[in-house]
Amino acid sequence: MTGWIAVAGLGPGAAALVTPEVTAALAEATDVIGYIPYVARVTPRAGLTLHASDNRVELDRARHALELAGQGRRVVVVSSGDPGVFAMAAALFEALEAGPAAWRALDIRVLPGITAMLAASAKAGAPLGHDFCAINLSDNLKPWELVERRVRLAAEADFAIAFYNPRSRARPAALERTFDVLRDVCGDDRPVLFARAVSTPEEVLRIVPLGQAQGEMADMRTLVIVGSSRTRIIAREAGPILYTPRWAP
Amino acid sequence: MTGWIAVAGLGPGAAALVTPEVTAALAEATDVIGYIPYVARVTPRAGLTLHASDNRVELDRARHALELAGQGRRVVVVSSGDPGVFAMAAALFEALEAGPAAWRALDIRVLPGITAMLAASAKAGAPLGHDFCAINLSDNLKPWELVERRVRLAAEADFAIAFYNPRSRARPAALERTFDVLRDVCGDDRPVLFARAVSTPEEVLRIVPLGQAQGEMADMRTLVIVGSSRTRIIAREAGPILYTPRWAP
Repeated sequence: MTGWIAVAGLGPGAAALVTPEVTAALAEATDVIGYIPYVARVTPRAGLTLHASDNRVELDRARHALELAGQGRRVVVVSSGDPGVFAMAAALFEALEAGPAAWRALDIRVLPGITAMLAASAKAGAPLGHDFCAINLSDNLKPWELVERRVRLAAEADFAIAFYNPRSRARPAALERTFDVLRDVCGDDRPVLFARAVSTPEEVLRIVPLGQAQGEMADMRTLVIVGSSRTRIIAREAGPILYTPRWAP
Repeated sequence: MTGWIAVAGLGPGAAALVTPEVTAALAEATDVIGYIPYVARVTPRAGLTLHASDNRVELDRARHALELAGQGRRVVVVSSGDPGVFAMAAALFEALEAGPAAWRALDIRVLPGITAMLAASAKAGAPLGHDFCAINLSDNLKPWELVERRVRLAAEADFAIAFYNPRSRARPAALERTFDVLRDVCGDDRPVLFARAVSTPEEVLRIVPLGQAQGEMADMRTLVIVGSSRTRIIAREAGPILYTPRWAP
């Protein structure tokens, strides 16, 4: 039995942001498993079976990967961005822990990728140049009370904050409520970056002060970064640069 | 004048983790600027001038890059990991903001890379699978009181926490004091990952409970991740998997 699983990050979209390690794993794979739009980014070839599935079936997908690897298949589970950040790696390990003991003998690797906040930050400047945090606003994974408490503490700690999945279908008001919490702690002046579909042809970046930020400015392909008290904007003809200095007084 | 600057992330060490975008920028460059061990990772070639400098001269390095680009040179400023995370991108923009107005017309791009916490997380499993934060323990960039306050709030928010530069020369006790603060808030049971030189031949991973974590377990090449209350270990013959489930009650 020579099966294995590689949980691989495809980065934010551009082929130039896929690591050679991930490209090599895809070249050796017999099976690719993932959410439909991510599997669509893998070039089909003879000997490679593509298993595309809908959203919200992460655990089914993980068990499928574990079963196939147990049969000797070489399986790449694809995520957008980095697989370890709000993506398939944790789902795979949830399934592994709850599954048959034999699964623990499988060869499993996680292959990192450029996660959305790093790609968005790079396009905008360097808003994550000082301490920061990342919060997933997706529904169903935690109660709203925990989100609100965490956002409030993050603002009190003066982190720059990256918000993933800011407009999930089941919790469309989450981002608007989050902005309300942040305005309550931070006032209206913090710069807010809406970075949509970074590194793809649909890329759009927009920066507004927190007082003007609205939930509707994000969709499911948007990554939102709210600056810390230190985050600054450099005005330029070619467009603003958003960055957070490395130091704080 | 066709000069430009690309502030590029070389990833944690392995060539297989350098993005094609960064490789392409290096192939077009006339000058590479950076800290000695990072410049040493760039293959010399005819027509490419390597400018290696010591640590703690980030602003000098940034001004040098801006001057060279203003003279029409094609300059890659190299960082380890991702240039936007506690690295050269913010330093470049600090120099840009304080410098001559003409610098704002320069063509400047930031090219993201695999930052240390993503590489360490991937090797260990998926400890950053739920909300998390990143804190730089490096000296001289902020007062200790701010570090301590931020660590305490991050623990109260129940983030997994990645610590960069845990053992800087000028503040050798920072990590030990940080563990003391965390034990005060979280108790002794949290798993702590010490990930040294990930993706290089010197890679070593070690996981201990917070009660046994000591500052001396890290050196300047170590990334430390302290789990949240939800972070778990899956025991396996091939070595433990450290991960944080996607959900929280």
